[in-house]
Amino acid sequence: MAESWLPTLITKTPEEGFQLAVKLSRMGVKTTQPDVEVLHKLRPEYANDADSLTAASHVIAVNFQTVSAANNYWRG
Amino acid sequence: MAESWLPTLITKTPEEGFQLAVKLSRMGVKTTQPDVEVLHKLRPEYANDADSLTAASHVIAVNFQTVSAANNYWRG
Amino acid sequence: MAESWLPTLITKTPEEGFQLAVKLSRMGVKTTQPDVEVLHKLRPEYANDADSLTAASHVIAVNFQTVSAANNYWRG
Amino acid sequence: MAESWLPTLITKTPEEGFQLAVKLSRMGVKTTQPDVEVLHKLRPEYANDADSLTAASHVIAVNFQTVSAANNYWRG
Amino acid sequence: MAESWLPTLITKTPEEGFQLAVKLSRMGVKTTQPDVEVLHKLRPEYANDADSLTAASHVIAVNFQTVSAANNYWRG
Amino acid sequence: MAESWLPTLITKTPEEGFQLAVKLSRMGVKTTQPDVEVLHKLRPEYANDADSLTAASHVIAVNFQTVSAANNYWRG
Repeated sequence: MAESWLPTLITKTPEEGFQLAVKLSRMGVKTTQPDVEVLHKLRPEYANDADSLTAASHVIAVNFQTVSAANNYWRG
Repeated sequence: MAESWLPTLITKTPEEGFQLAVKLSRMGVKTTQPDVEVLHKLRPEYANDADSLTAASHVIAVNFQTVSAANNYWRG
Repeated sequence: MAESWLPTLITKTPEEGFQLAVKLSRMGVKTTQPDVEVLHKLRPEYANDADSLTAASHVIAVNFQTVSAANNYWRG
Repeated sequence: MAESWLPTLITKTPEEGFQLAVKLSRMGVKTTQPDVEVLHKLRPEYANDADSLTAASHVIAVNFQTVSAANNYWRG
Repeated sequence: MAESWLPTLITKTPEEGFQLAVKLSRMGVKTTQPDVEVLHKLRPEYANDADSLTAASHVIAVNFQTVSAANNYWRG
Repeated sequence: MAESWLPTLITKTPEEGFQLAVKLSRMGVKTTQPDVEVLHKLRPEYANDADSLTAASHVIAVNFQTVSAANNYWRG
């Protein structure tokens, strides 16, 4: 049985939580376009466009809300 | 009586929750454009455009917030 | 006295909650453009455009957050 | 002393709450462009564009989240 | 020591809370482009464009969610 | 061991919380495009475009929601 790519939303630190938010954002893309070669070709298109980068940061921010709430904001 | 496509928001794991978020996002599209053939024709348009993929990931992120909250973040 | 189009946010099932989210999204459009004929003419414009459909699904997702919270996620 | 245009977020019914969300959305526009004549001229531009209408519905949906939470979803 | 431009999220009334949301939205712009002259030149560009105004209203709506929650929706 | 760029979401004041939201928004961009030179070249593109600035402010607003909730809105 394959390991899950998302076994939990709990992380040790806020920084790891941010990395998980990035991962969730990428999986959202990958689910829609699973062909890694296509994704690779598209990279220069958005990685060099200011508005595309802002849009990517927006999705990460939404996922970071979820991960932060899951971790009770790491209030400790 | 037909089975519901959305009997519950509760899932066993975060990964299944993410899949449900993807399903909700697609149903949002399908409700607006129920013609599967049209949707099929549109696929290359957005699946090969970086900004469209980011937008798709954004919708999934919003739905994943809902599913995650419903599942109390699978805190266990 | 006319019946309210939105007497409650409470629904019996998640699927009915999703339908209510769709209704809220459409009312948001209709409030801004009440002329049904205009809306009818605009339909082909967005129903055949991938990005427009994603945007429509996004609005439904935001409204589904509201309806889901109102129903305590149908945790039952 | 002038009356406040926003004395409270509490409304009697969900439908009135939706109307308040519409009002908040319009005030967000009006605050940025207070010249009513300009707003009037812009109306045909967005009221006849499907994507603009979806965007308007999106803002209403965000404000409706706020108003719904304020009213504890009119759970009664 | 300079006074903070954001000493608190608490306001006396919903209307003042809305004004604070507008301020937060502007500070988000100003942080990215601190040159007031540039901002001044850009004003006609977005203040006369329906979609730009809707986008501005959207940001205010997101910030108003934050301020409203901070004030427990002024439930009194 | 390198210091974390995000050791905590807790800040002393709302203003510092806003600054953290700005930092999170920038890290979302930097994670997608780590090449600082490219980012530097893109700056004039978005810093002089009204819609890009609004989009940047939008991302900050989403992150500010997260930071504000983490700090219990600095209700004190």
